[in-house]
Amino acid sequence: MDNKKNRVRVRVPGTSANCGPGFDCLGLATTIYNHLDLTLLRNGKVIVEATGEGADNIPRGRRNLTWQAVRRLLQEVKREDEFKGAIIRMKNHVPISRGLGSSSTAIVAGLVAANEILDTPLNRQELLKLATEIEGHPDNVAPALFGGFTVSVMNNGEVQTFSFQPRIKLKLVVAVPDFELSTRLARKVLPRNIPLKDAIFNVSRASMLIAALVEGREDLLPLAFDDALHQPYRKKLVPGMTEVFEAAKNAGALGAAISGAGSCLIAFTSARSRLEEKIASAMVEEFQIHGVKSKALILNVDKHGAQILKR
Amino acid sequence: MDNKKNRVRVRVPGTSANCGPGFDCLGLATTIYNHLDLTLLRNGKVIVEATGEGADNIPRGRRNLTWQAVRRLLQEVKREDEFKGAIIRMKNHVPISRGLGSSSTAIVAGLVAANEILDTPLNRQELLKLATEIEGHPDNVAPALFGGFTVSVMNNGEVQTFSFQPRIKLKLVVAVPDFELSTRLARKVLPRNIPLKDAIFNVSRASMLIAALVEGREDLLPLAFDDALHQPYRKKLVPGMTEVFEAAKNAGALGAAISGAGSCLIAFTSARSRLEEKIASAMVEEFQIHGVKSKALILNVDKHGAQILKR
Repeated sequence: MDNKKNRVRVRVPGTSANCGPGFDCLGLATTIYNHLDLTLLRNGKVIVEATGEGADNIPRGRRNLTWQAVRRLLQEVKREDEFKGAIIRMKNHVPISRGLGSSSTAIVAGLVAANEILDTPLNRQELLKLATEIEGHPDNVAPALFGGFTVSVMNNGEVQTFSFQPRIKLKLVVAVPDFELSTRLARKVLPRNIPLKDAIFNVSRASMLIAALVEGREDLLPLAFDDALHQPYRKKLVPGMTEVFEAAKNAGALGAAISGAGSCLIAFTSARSRLEEKIASAMVEEFQIHGVKSKALILNVDKHGAQILKR
Repeated sequence: MDNKKNRVRVRVPGTSANCGPGFDCLGLATTIYNHLDLTLLRNGKVIVEATGEGADNIPRGRRNLTWQAVRRLLQEVKREDEFKGAIIRMKNHVPISRGLGSSSTAIVAGLVAANEILDTPLNRQELLKLATEIEGHPDNVAPALFGGFTVSVMNNGEVQTFSFQPRIKLKLVVAVPDFELSTRLARKVLPRNIPLKDAIFNVSRASMLIAALVEGREDLLPLAFDDALHQPYRKKLVPGMTEVFEAAKNAGALGAAISGAGSCLIAFTSARSRLEEKIASAMVEEFQIHGVKSKALILNVDKHGAQILKR
């Protein structure tokens, strides 16, 4: 087998989990991508080359997350004796530790690329299972794999995901602060118990959000992005959070939320309103008032999820 | 104005709130109906005639819930000086205090009928607002008004409702126990605080339920009717609840839940499976094992909500 057959390039979207009320179950794929050029090696070398976002901090060698995903897939399909190493070339655009699913892109890219080289022994549902196992939750790996919006349900450790394209053309305005936020810390500030009324708040809004997106009812969205389960506890980790949400809405956004566990904030606007630039400026300016330097990304919803670019 | 112009007949569906995970926000209309024949009177007499379910216990006179709804509407449109009384003739099929929204039918019937006699000064959204105010929550009045499934969000005392027809043809199997359950008691057993993980459980399942129903994905329904927010606390009020759910599922139901605050239990099955009779028997038999006498109703989802039958 020559190297060419053992090599594949894939592209995986950055993702935004929670989308406001859908804590730990909703996610969406965005049009910012990380690229992986993977070559499986028969020898035990793991060579990692990275450029772009966070390139300097990505573990080289066997601790690399993409390698761990590749190895997990090789084990799953019992080919780990055949391929003991890899050349991993990453070109990253997704900001690191900002709530845009960069670690999920690394995992999904490794799984999808290795699976492709091995002639797809696993289907996407099986890849989702592995990815969820490695990441610990499906919120980001599901949209990274499937694209669009995703609803994921965990049941006895098994994950079930529904992926759909919203019938409203949305623009996503992401304000990316210049500080990182670890998911571990963002988890630690959450209480173990919460008021029942806050649960009802989110159940009703998540239901409304799904209904509005699936049916294309923009008029129902303005209430649908609010959250009472995690953002109130996390706002102390993102200075100016509430005010940036307000600034986005005042500039015309349908709603705004923390992207994943932060630090990014994401605003949702309909593409036909053409307000995305105005919303982006308002968010960056409001962050600035609270002493946070940020840059804005204007993105669309990615429709495809992880894609093979070249074999 | 003669009596004929002041008289109208309406039909309002019984409803089932919560549908498992959608505590205090989801509801559906069923094909069991209460009928109201309303005549507005210029004099101050309130005459109530009732036949059918719970007829003996329905308050006659001004404490009658339908009259209260009629009066509220007359006040809202500033016609209370013109019509000071009514003849209320009710023919009821919806069991009382069983979680099938009988009080909501009384309210919605009064509002819709009076509104029709007055040449519809209020639209359905305005009627929903009044009905929610009288009932205290939108879970049953929303589907009673709009039909289909409904998602309702409360925001600063205002209600927003989305009504949709599921793209899966469902049969509803309702086991009606021979005991009543007051909503007040069923509320009292609920804790003020609940684990965050239980909130996530319901947010994810409610989202999946809406997505599955709107998109017609029967394969996603089996996980989607489960609940962690209210049923675990209410099961002591409905002997055999968990076992009746299991019996329904073992007989082929996609899922099962308490209807509203109980005492009815409702199972969901696809019409094309033709398992509704089998499920009904299984539920009644399992209730019997737990010392509860019950009868089964096999219903469809009502598509229309409150309807004017005759003017």
